[in-house]
Amino acid sequence: MGMPELESVWEAYKKAVREGGDANALYREMVWPLLKELWHQGPRVSPGPREFAVSIHTLGTSPEATILAILGTRAEKVYVLHTEDSQKFVPRLREETGKDVYPIKVGKSHVDAIYQHVRELLREHAGKPVALDLTSGTKAMSAGLAAAGFYFQRYYPEVRVVYVDNEEYDDQVRRPRAGTERLIILPNPHEVVADVDALLARELYQQGEFAEAEGYFGQAVGKAQDQRYMLYALLSGMYRAWYALELAEAVKKGRDLLRRLDMDVWLRHPLNDHRKTLEAQLASLEAGERFLAEADPCQSQGVLAVVETLLYLSDRSGKASSALGALYAYRALELLLQERLCARLGRRADHPALAPEEEEALKGELASILRTTPEEVRLGPKLGLLDLVAFLRSQGDPLLSRVGLGELQGLSGVLKARNESLLVHGFRVPSRKEIGSIQTLAKPLLQDLQERLGLRVPVKPVELGQAL
Amino acid sequence: MGMPELESVWEAYKKAVREGGDANALYREMVWPLLKELWHQGPRVSPGPREFAVSIHTLGTSPEATILAILGTRAEKVYVLHTEDSQKFVPRLREETGKDVYPIKVGKSHVDAIYQHVRELLREHAGKPVALDLTSGTKAMSAGLAAAGFYFQRYYPEVRVVYVDNEEYDDQVRRPRAGTERLIILPNPHEVVADVDALLARELYQQGEFAEAEGYFGQAVGKAQDQRYMLYALLSGMYRAWYALELAEAVKKGRDLLRRLDMDVWLRHPLNDHRKTLEAQLASLEAGERFLAEADPCQSQGVLAVVETLLYLSDRSGKASSALGALYAYRALELLLQERLCARLGRRADHPALAPEEEEALKGELASILRTTPEEVRLGPKLGLLDLVAFLRSQGDPLLSRVGLGELQGLSGVLKARNESLLVHGFRVPSRKEIGSIQTLAKPLLQDLQERLGLRVPVKPVELGQAL
Repeated sequence: MGMPELESVWEAYKKAVREGGDANALYREMVWPLLKELWHQGPRVSPGPREFAVSIHTLGTSPEATILAILGTRAEKVYVLHTEDSQKFVPRLREETGKDVYPIKVGKSHVDAIYQHVRELLREHAGKPVALDLTSGTKAMSAGLAAAGFYFQRYYPEVRVVYVDNEEYDDQVRRPRAGTERLIILPNPHEVVADVDALLARELYQQGEFAEAEGYFGQAVGKAQDQRYMLYALLSGMYRAWYALELAEAVKKGRDLLRRLDMDVWLRHPLNDHRKTLEAQLASLEAGERFLAEADPCQSQGVLAVVETLLYLSDRSGKASSALGALYAYRALELLLQERLCARLGRRADHPALAPEEEEALKGELASILRTTPEEVRLGPKLGLLDLVAFLRSQGDPLLSRVGLGELQGLSGVLKARNESLLVHGFRVPSRKEIGSIQTLAKPLLQDLQERLGLRVPVKPVELGQAL
Repeated sequence: MGMPELESVWEAYKKAVREGGDANALYREMVWPLLKELWHQGPRVSPGPREFAVSIHTLGTSPEATILAILGTRAEKVYVLHTEDSQKFVPRLREETGKDVYPIKVGKSHVDAIYQHVRELLREHAGKPVALDLTSGTKAMSAGLAAAGFYFQRYYPEVRVVYVDNEEYDDQVRRPRAGTERLIILPNPHEVVADVDALLARELYQQGEFAEAEGYFGQAVGKAQDQRYMLYALLSGMYRAWYALELAEAVKKGRDLLRRLDMDVWLRHPLNDHRKTLEAQLASLEAGERFLAEADPCQSQGVLAVVETLLYLSDRSGKASSALGALYAYRALELLLQERLCARLGRRADHPALAPEEEEALKGELASILRTTPEEVRLGPKLGLLDLVAFLRSQGDPLLSRVGLGELQGLSGVLKARNESLLVHGFRVPSRKEIGSIQTLAKPLLQDLQERLGLRVPVKPVELGQAL
């Protein structure tokens, strides 16, 4: 018994219908038993057979289709979402499939209930492959099941949405030709749409996961054969390297990106809308890279680039970890003071070469901040963070002289705490309040540097928009 | 003209059918023009009217339903995915809706093409509210449109899946009762399923986003009225605080969690499967907290807890940022050496109180590592990282004595580079190779500490599984 037999039965059935028989009754008598038997033996599944442990079916007024779906998914556990009207078919499903079908009643337009039932069944059968079959039932039921399927697939990757389809329609009897039924396992859009990686990449970019975004944009180039995404990959790579403080690599990526945006073929690339920002970012990165390579805090533009980066990272990481937030903020403040020492006094913190009277002035200033006597103050060979504040004040720095002594005394504890940080040499984790104090001191220094240079660093990633 | 008139037309239509008229022809003549006119004036939309700029419809052999859907969504731009068979209805759609309907031909089972068309249309109309209407068409077409809708909603949040439904079926004429049609905007499962926040929270937890996971688990408690999720919120909070090095808070969360897991009502909570790991984690956190609070590196168990944490953070953050990866690794190595100094020699790095002969031995050891003479070596008041290595070697530490001098000479540059790091006082960003060198030195020290204590710290988050 097999397909050839089904074909001859189909021709006999058509003949009987033509001769005036009751089409439905004849189908049930002649065709259905054979078709069902064939599916018991071996269902036709597209793109290929797949093991399911659980199946969930919506049930309308065509139990035959659901019977084929149950035979096609071959699950051990079978749930049927039926309505008031279709409840009567449940015993037939049991009888003709030989499965212990479990019924769940829902309203025929009650999508919410379908979501909730699917959610609960997926939890109950977590980790097992589950088929959601939307062949039968109202549009609302099918749509609800499909929605639940594709929504929950993100959390339960073993879920598949399936339905029974026909390859051929027989116009003479106005019915799908028996034997052309197949159980279709619906593909996930992710497997089919060539550039869906680009959407995932955009989501990761927006979450600040630039390494991952770079990877997915790179994949999208190959899969969709679309070089447009290469420019987004370069952009993501630039931010990845930048925020990891690997400025040389960020410069390389940025230069490559801008070079490509200049090409005729990419003049209308959406990133060219951000041309000005990208150019300013690259210029900042270049200045920052030069300053770091030459270890020269007299390079004000480079210092500004790195300081704004560090303060941005302080904000970003400080929410999750105040230890990291403080670390970035400390270093930003120190760099601002080192740049200022050079710009105002032409000195460097690592070999300040203080004249005796300067040393005395510094000791006096430190003593009043630390509430001690100048004799008690010990100076190291380099100027540390607090030394820098004190020395600039002692030399009449207008900005730092303006800070009240009381405020500085409160800060001195915070500044000294740097070395006591668990991430440096100590055992403490700075509080969010301490980070705030550092930022308060850094802010006017940063503004002054920005004003002197007539420059701000656009340190945030450009918006990608939805036109991707 | 309005609903009352439609009701009387409906009764007249039913009477005409009962008297033997052609049901379809009578419907088209008597009922449809009035129904259509009512939807032109004001469609019925559930849960309420909504503005759409674009609508995309699957079209099967029931153009009336699609006409109502087009009138219901009221979009400016209308696309219709039709088959070979349903192409003939497109002019009627234009005529009866007054919209410039744009046709797109697809195979009636060709789901991939539907995904691809929807993807392209969503990109073209990015940012605008789009309705995907699955009222008409084959199951494959409707299912494909629903799949695309709910899949792409993640990236295009303005997308809604809609369909036209009937509230009432008239058994006498075996047709939906005219006037009970509604355009249904399908809810997103996220808006309906009470505990879907818990699924999102689990995803964030698995990605290591513990602060966000904590927030969503907390929301799930309120929305689903299920205290089960409170325990996951506490667990996420424990890891959030732990990996931010806020051990006191981590201990508080961990204690609260274990106290609850002891309650009768939660004895079967899935987290009780991880009981042993959770208890070991809490014990480690308590030891680490005590060590940090007392700033006492002689507390070996606490040092181990913090060191394993730092090495874990080094691994985790080092992938994205070698500057951070190196920072954590340096501090872990330093703590291991400080603990060892105490355990073997009873000394502390911050006031080592070296005897003259010890100082001499240290200088000799440093000189041979740094390839200089003992006279050139300057010692500070505290033992830094390289000093610790040298001093332990000079005192015959078996583990450190085993490290070859050549290897140490290579390392000395790396160890000294700590202060030159951009995140500490310098301008360099350590390479991944340098992190590797630090970890190579740290590994045997860590193993020795673990063996002395007979202890390892289970520093990774427990697996949540799918039974959530």
